[in-house]
Amino acid sequence: MNAYENVKAICDSARRASLSLSKKSGGERSLALLKIAEAILNSSDEIIKANAKDLENAVANGMKESMQDRLMLNQARIKDIARAIIKIADLPDPIGTGEIFTRPNGLEIHKTSVPLGVVAMIYEARPNVTPDASSLCIKSGNAVILRGGKEAINSNKAIVSVIRSTLSECGFDENCVALIEDTTRESSNALMQMRGGVDVLIPRGGKGLIKSVVENARVPVIETGAGNCHLYVDRCADIDMALSVAINAKCSRPSVCNAIETVLVHKSVAEEFLQRFYNATRDVSLEFRGCPVCCDILPGISEATEEDYATEYDDYIISCKAVDSVYEAVEHIRKYSTGHSESIITEDSRCADYFTGSIDSCSLYVNASTRFTDGGEFGLGAEIGISTQKLHVRGPMGLSALTTTKYIIKGDGHTR
Amino acid sequence: MNAYENVKAICDSARRASLSLSKKSGGERSLALLKIAEAILNSSDEIIKANAKDLENAVANGMKESMQDRLMLNQARIKDIARAIIKIADLPDPIGTGEIFTRPNGLEIHKTSVPLGVVAMIYEARPNVTPDASSLCIKSGNAVILRGGKEAINSNKAIVSVIRSTLSECGFDENCVALIEDTTRESSNALMQMRGGVDVLIPRGGKGLIKSVVENARVPVIETGAGNCHLYVDRCADIDMALSVAINAKCSRPSVCNAIETVLVHKSVAEEFLQRFYNATRDVSLEFRGCPVCCDILPGISEATEEDYATEYDDYIISCKAVDSVYEAVEHIRKYSTGHSESIITEDSRCADYFTGSIDSCSLYVNASTRFTDGGEFGLGAEIGISTQKLHVRGPMGLSALTTTKYIIKGDGHTR
Repeated sequence: MNAYENVKAICDSARRASLSLSKKSGGERSLALLKIAEAILNSSDEIIKANAKDLENAVANGMKESMQDRLMLNQARIKDIARAIIKIADLPDPIGTGEIFTRPNGLEIHKTSVPLGVVAMIYEARPNVTPDASSLCIKSGNAVILRGGKEAINSNKAIVSVIRSTLSECGFDENCVALIEDTTRESSNALMQMRGGVDVLIPRGGKGLIKSVVENARVPVIETGAGNCHLYVDRCADIDMALSVAINAKCSRPSVCNAIETVLVHKSVAEEFLQRFYNATRDVSLEFRGCPVCCDILPGISEATEEDYATEYDDYIISCKAVDSVYEAVEHIRKYSTGHSESIITEDSRCADYFTGSIDSCSLYVNASTRFTDGGEFGLGAEIGISTQKLHVRGPMGLSALTTTKYIIKGDGHTR
Repeated sequence: MNAYENVKAICDSARRASLSLSKKSGGERSLALLKIAEAILNSSDEIIKANAKDLENAVANGMKESMQDRLMLNQARIKDIARAIIKIADLPDPIGTGEIFTRPNGLEIHKTSVPLGVVAMIYEARPNVTPDASSLCIKSGNAVILRGGKEAINSNKAIVSVIRSTLSECGFDENCVALIEDTTRESSNALMQMRGGVDVLIPRGGKGLIKSVVENARVPVIETGAGNCHLYVDRCADIDMALSVAINAKCSRPSVCNAIETVLVHKSVAEEFLQRFYNATRDVSLEFRGCPVCCDILPGISEATEEDYATEYDDYIISCKAVDSVYEAVEHIRKYSTGHSESIITEDSRCADYFTGSIDSCSLYVNASTRFTDGGEFGLGAEIGISTQKLHVRGPMGLSALTTTKYIIKGDGHTR
């Protein structure tokens, strides 16, 4: 069987599994998840052993330490995984909710949520995505096809094996969760072309992966990830607040999509803010790249290029620019933003309203860190990714993002 | 300027226009629509004159009469167009609605609806789409780029000219509504590739157009149109009801997407139903193509092929098949349906529930005609098309389909 045939067979079984899954009640789905959480805890030794193989290969292949850390699973992390699954099990059922309305002619229309059907994930490195995505999909009545990266292949196989046997024990079709073990480019290409077989494809990973999926996939895709986020410190900002927010938004986890890459600061507070921000970030050696005014304020920093302003560093590097007004800040953000998250620190409500109303990003913050753009923080309970597109779902994707609409219309011989 | 540069320039002005449009209140947008309706009525002579040129060209090019009728505008139809615009003006504002919730940490999250931005339409023949789409887009705060078919170019130019000058008089940027006058393939290709310039592209027209857009567009698309709809007459059906629904669902407007193409009938009622249905449709010479059992019941009809069951005839032709049970009916529909609309006639509620629960189409009817799948009939007030996809919007697309989400988050120095 070639790569395409293998993927086609997996998609066909997933479709059949999704039909049987649609017959399970919310209670049955939740119970299956609780059993999966338990089984994962009970299998931690096997999972850690498989993960050790992946880490061995990673070291042999020269993977850098921060990436190895993202790959690593230990008892504590497996406990977290199990806890996350239990949390998802306890969320309200996203399926079978909706509204009823009756038309003037007496037609009764039920608009209800149903599973998308078959969800596919193409992702890199982090083995956490495997149990996370599986739980969110099962909870929402969807079958899921997982195509993880080769770095985590043994970890993924071990986790999926536990999930599939638990599903079987619960009377579910084990093909509700399937792993494509072929980690060549052919298998991801085949998945991307499987129109009719895959109802939505969600990529999670670096820019290269996202770009490749968005450009090549013929199945519906939800674009995730790109976060060229900004912070604007207004002349009416509480500078202490601006500092703690800036440090959190840049330095708490620089490699995530909701971390800021550029700080814009009103020229009237630029000197005080930038000097304090610079000094406060020497412990992590945050590298500044600035406009000419910033270079005057912080001698020794490099000059920022146009390319820098457009770059998502994902690292301890930040661009900075002094601006004349909130209008100039908004112009800059409109030019460079990827539509993810932007924040303004100000006590001036008109400035705040102008900022939040004029920028077309998914999340606009007033006096808070962009790091809150997250399903858990938004109260969605869980998250399968953060969408950076406008259609279907925007921002953190919770369970309802994995559903679509069905209309059931009851009449009494109605004709039109 | 070549086709691409021309389209790019139009997209750029539309983007600028959409920014200024986002500053207009709902009241201002509604008022502009009322003025547009008035202006279109006042310009009916000019519009009809332009339309006459299109009709002249259509006749010269051998366009068939049913198509000419779709192209034709007269006083009555222009009055209908104006009435439809006034109706849209009076609908609730779809922008700036949403919910507020406060998180345990005190973050106040406002989830609100905002315009998509720039909507593009590629459509064929019917000049009604021009004022319909323009009104729906203006109402929802979106700029719209219209790429109509060459058959209606003069009608479209005349209508758009009235809309643009009225927008100007109302203090709106006239580029909120733009017509691509170049009706070559190059211009639609350019529009389809304009990533970043177009937020959503909606095709309206025949299968060839839809397929071409869905396969080639690199901008977000909402797939419309494909309606291989089914009617299943169950053994517990009220046969009189089944007949009137079947006649309505097939013959009232055979060329629309919500008309049925196949009728499935339980073998125990097949003879009575089919003979009565056949006799009742001699006035329109409805052509039947049937399974072997149906061919026995209606001697002289052709045998239906697998291809027939998959065909959207859009004409006075219907496939028919006798089945053993609702299960067989559902199997058939699952195989051939395009996910649009299906109907069951039955008094058996378990059959009805099985039917509506097991078929993955956007609209499932019990004892009513599939012809109700329509924005107006569903109470959406207006409709920019009927989506046959699962993401973003499914079924009739009202105003909210032209919006996306924005989160505005207010904190007090919150960090994570």
